[in-house]
Amino acid sequence: MTLKGYTAPLSPDGRASIVPPPPWHYSGDFLIVEYRTDPDAVAALLPPELEPHDDDRAGMMAAIFADWQSCSDDGHELVDPIQSQYREFFLVVGATFQGQPVSRCVYIWVDKDFAMYRGWIQGFPKKLGSIHMTRTFPVGRAAPKVEPGARFGATCAANDRQVARAVVTLRGVSQTGPTVNDPPMHNTRHFPAYDGTRPDVFELVRSGGFDRHATEIWEGDAELRLYDDTLEDLAAIAPIEVGRGFRFSFGYTVHGGEVVAQHDREMPVR
Amino acid sequence: MTLKGYTAPLSPDGRASIVPPPPWHYSGDFLIVEYRTDPDAVAALLPPELEPHDDDRAGMMAAIFADWQSCSDDGHELVDPIQSQYREFFLVVGATFQGQPVSRCVYIWVDKDFAMYRGWIQGFPKKLGSIHMTRTFPVGRAAPKVEPGARFGATCAANDRQVARAVVTLRGVSQTGPTVNDPPMHNTRHFPAYDGTRPDVFELVRSGGFDRHATEIWEGDAELRLYDDTLEDLAAIAPIEVGRGFRFSFGYTVHGGEVVAQHDREMPVR
Amino acid sequence: MTLKGYTAPLSPDGRASIVPPPPWHYSGDFLIVEYRTDPDAVAALLPPELEPHDDDRAGMMAAIFADWQSCSDDGHELVDPIQSQYREFFLVVGATFQGQPVSRCVYIWVDKDFAMYRGWIQGFPKKLGSIHMTRTFPVGRAAPKVEPGARFGATCAANDRQVARAVVTLRGVSQTGPTVNDPPMHNTRHFPAYDGTRPDVFELVRSGGFDRHATEIWEGDAELRLYDDTLEDLAAIAPIEVGRGFRFSFGYTVHGGEVVAQHDREMPVR
Amino acid sequence: MTLKGYTAPLSPDGRASIVPPPPWHYSGDFLIVEYRTDPDAVAALLPPELEPHDDDRAGMMAAIFADWQSCSDDGHELVDPIQSQYREFFLVVGATFQGQPVSRCVYIWVDKDFAMYRGWIQGFPKKLGSIHMTRTFPVGRAAPKVEPGARFGATCAANDRQVARAVVTLRGVSQTGPTVNDPPMHNTRHFPAYDGTRPDVFELVRSGGFDRHATEIWEGDAELRLYDDTLEDLAAIAPIEVGRGFRFSFGYTVHGGEVVAQHDREMPVR
Repeated sequence: MTLKGYTAPLSPDGRASIVPPPPWHYSGDFLIVEYRTDPDAVAALLPPELEPHDDDRAGMMAAIFADWQSCSDDGHELVDPIQSQYREFFLVVGATFQGQPVSRCVYIWVDKDFAMYRGWIQGFPKKLGSIHMTRTFPVGRAAPKVEPGARFGATCAANDRQVARAVVTLRGVSQTGPTVNDPPMHNTRHFPAYDGTRPDVFELVRSGGFDRHATEIWEGDAELRLYDDTLEDLAAIAPIEVGRGFRFSFGYTVHGGEVVAQHDREMPVR
Repeated sequence: MTLKGYTAPLSPDGRASIVPPPPWHYSGDFLIVEYRTDPDAVAALLPPELEPHDDDRAGMMAAIFADWQSCSDDGHELVDPIQSQYREFFLVVGATFQGQPVSRCVYIWVDKDFAMYRGWIQGFPKKLGSIHMTRTFPVGRAAPKVEPGARFGATCAANDRQVARAVVTLRGVSQTGPTVNDPPMHNTRHFPAYDGTRPDVFELVRSGGFDRHATEIWEGDAELRLYDDTLEDLAAIAPIEVGRGFRFSFGYTVHGGEVVAQHDREMPVR
Repeated sequence: MTLKGYTAPLSPDGRASIVPPPPWHYSGDFLIVEYRTDPDAVAALLPPELEPHDDDRAGMMAAIFADWQSCSDDGHELVDPIQSQYREFFLVVGATFQGQPVSRCVYIWVDKDFAMYRGWIQGFPKKLGSIHMTRTFPVGRAAPKVEPGARFGATCAANDRQVARAVVTLRGVSQTGPTVNDPPMHNTRHFPAYDGTRPDVFELVRSGGFDRHATEIWEGDAELRLYDDTLEDLAAIAPIEVGRGFRFSFGYTVHGGEVVAQHDREMPVR
Repeated sequence: MTLKGYTAPLSPDGRASIVPPPPWHYSGDFLIVEYRTDPDAVAALLPPELEPHDDDRAGMMAAIFADWQSCSDDGHELVDPIQSQYREFFLVVGATFQGQPVSRCVYIWVDKDFAMYRGWIQGFPKKLGSIHMTRTFPVGRAAPKVEPGARFGATCAANDRQVARAVVTLRGVSQTGPTVNDPPMHNTRHFPAYDGTRPDVFELVRSGGFDRHATEIWEGDAELRLYDDTLEDLAAIAPIEVGRGFRFSFGYTVHGGEVVAQHDREMPVR
């Protein structure tokens, strides 16, 4: 076959693929708000291989905004920034797998096609959205510094519906960092069959990633609103109690990962 | 499992899926330009199961712009048009499969996420793009009528790079309609493995579709430009000779289809 | 001066202008919902030259979605449809001027720059938004026909905040057509001074337009929601009672108009 | 009058204005490429009040990409970043006014409506565009650091046509900084009349701005391409010789400015 590619579209030179082959390098800014919602709603979002927490972590979730730059190994995307920059918003729950704490992305929105499809490969069920996050700049009066009292906001909309809005007011350097999304991410990769509703790919995967580096993590007071007029049932996992907010920068590299279970493919569609 | 869905994201009520379960109904306007390019470049875009034409169809391609509205069986998307409307541009080649004429989509761009992912399920390797097509309106001086001399234009850009531009000047009702994209579409479904480069899904599929209805097809003179500064090698399949252009409306319904071959998964990435 | 242009940017050949010189031709589809709101809120949106209605028209407004194609006199924009197509949503109130009924656009959102700036020239205070409207197509099951029971929806969002959502269910041909927006539009043209808050242009203008043609107007039941989390105070003019909805196509030509009054430029900014 | 506002749309509370009243604060990142083009083409873009350079500055231009965050005096836009962030690309020429060196923005594209209209108030003839610029991040392998050899890219497209592409490879700290755009900006404010082609506002203005702060300016080798298939005649001012590139961050505050001349309003449209 003359066709090549890590993903479709396949082409003679392989470069038409929507996603280049791994490894993928990432650098980004994060704004995270932890919150407590109905533990039953969290449990209802877990596949049978994962157990909901039954301690004080029950019902805990993280709302995560990220402002990313990413590239493949030769870094060619960096000088054509439309190929490397994207922003995303995702909602993460905690659980256990085989007795160990894990995290899981239940909903996620992103603003570029390559990041959307790369997400599907990794078990992040990405839809398109519009995400904005306050930035810092070294000079001028139109940017917060990373200092006590600084306020960082973020919004997400999708399909012209508001999804989430958050504001974090920094108080100081965090001793703990965010905890909900800290354990290894255990997502579900899913790809439908061509015919019928039994998927061709339906598996639980553990996220990899190495060369992780983060700046100092700041934390503070947080406000968070999830909207209830979305295509997904976000009202079910709306905040009952909003916890701390966090801001930091983070970079890492991803190159594959481990499939830890096959889900039962006889799943109802509706 | 409490989770449901035709696609991810899975959810307790199943409605979070980026694509609802089939059948999917489609109504749209089409602008098509047929053209001849280098036959070797067409052959290089075929998987080994398909044979290039060796007669006067060799090197023939179709550049297709479509302005769609689609919905699932209950039609709920129609009153929230951001969920139902999208535009796309795609490039189609002709070939034979087991001696029968087929068509194949080699590149395609679309402007909505649900249509992008629904395309991947069907073997259309969709990227995001921005597509525009001249429309008709029943009144006013700012719209061509479907009549001799009327001019319809269309453009596609992706990643802020120009992809294609076409203009069709109608001359009369077509006796033949477009021919390159007429045979059954034989696309490749591809979904990467979580680890490594051997895909988990890599198969040749024949497109289904029924309840096909079209308006009268008009044809005329055509201009077509493919740009050479794109992420894909469109220069290789640029027009050598531009043929006729076509304009019409078309509607149909899709509900699954047939997998006709498994491709060899030991494929080079680059 | 070697520079030319109907608007800036000026250039030696004049073609760089964001808006070409009039006349401007328009063809479009309309979805209109009439509704009653607080008459005091309508009165508060009028300049002193206009009097609020004190009869059963008091508090009446129209929410108007339009899906346009427009061009200048040589029609060159039509074959490059990104230069000719746009959608907009606007809110219209009724009033009287010198004893005669008039209409006035109080808020408006549009999705293209040329239409935004052309609007400012005409006294439409356009912001950017994302607008979607259900379309008809001649074939396929993914489009309503213009017939009793057909449902047409429309949405507007701006700055990633929901602005409006409407659904109209057609019942039959309208005997009256929409009435709120029927009288001549009396908008305010405003352009700030370079320094200070006293505007350089601040005048009441009567909209022109000729060669008006409309298709048969259909009417029916309507739903309308204005959202309250917008940058403008839409809550003040939210629907108290929703009236009829209308759908039709309309075309006309605009070439200037009449300035009917100069507003008092000593106006508070906040 | 109950209506208030620095700009339209006017409203009872004044907050509906597309642009809030000054002062406006700005913080941003800049990527600048200086280049030489045809001096006659530069002269043809000047109003009669400005004289083209006749020394070695003749034909010099600057292509400027900026990634901004801005806010009004209370800073409320900063926690709703869609209201504060925007990117722009502009082309600047040098000239003299009354014997003193000045700069002038001849074309400019920006990606937000508030920034577009605020530009028109200041004599920047902004159109909408899509602009991307490589960013730095403190961690991760997907971002250049500000160091010798680091490469920063930027692109601009508008109306789905490519406008400009630049890459700057940093070599060291600049002793001079950019020079073309350094003198005070002298732009033209233009607002059409409601009827006819004689503008209501047509004046030469000197840009203000204070509390200027910049980071260390880095310079290096530059590549620059202006595309020739745009709505403006960029081919006329394409690079003949590409000079140095610069990267730095910059912040300042704007509050009005000075009108230095009235242009002759009897100007040809085409």
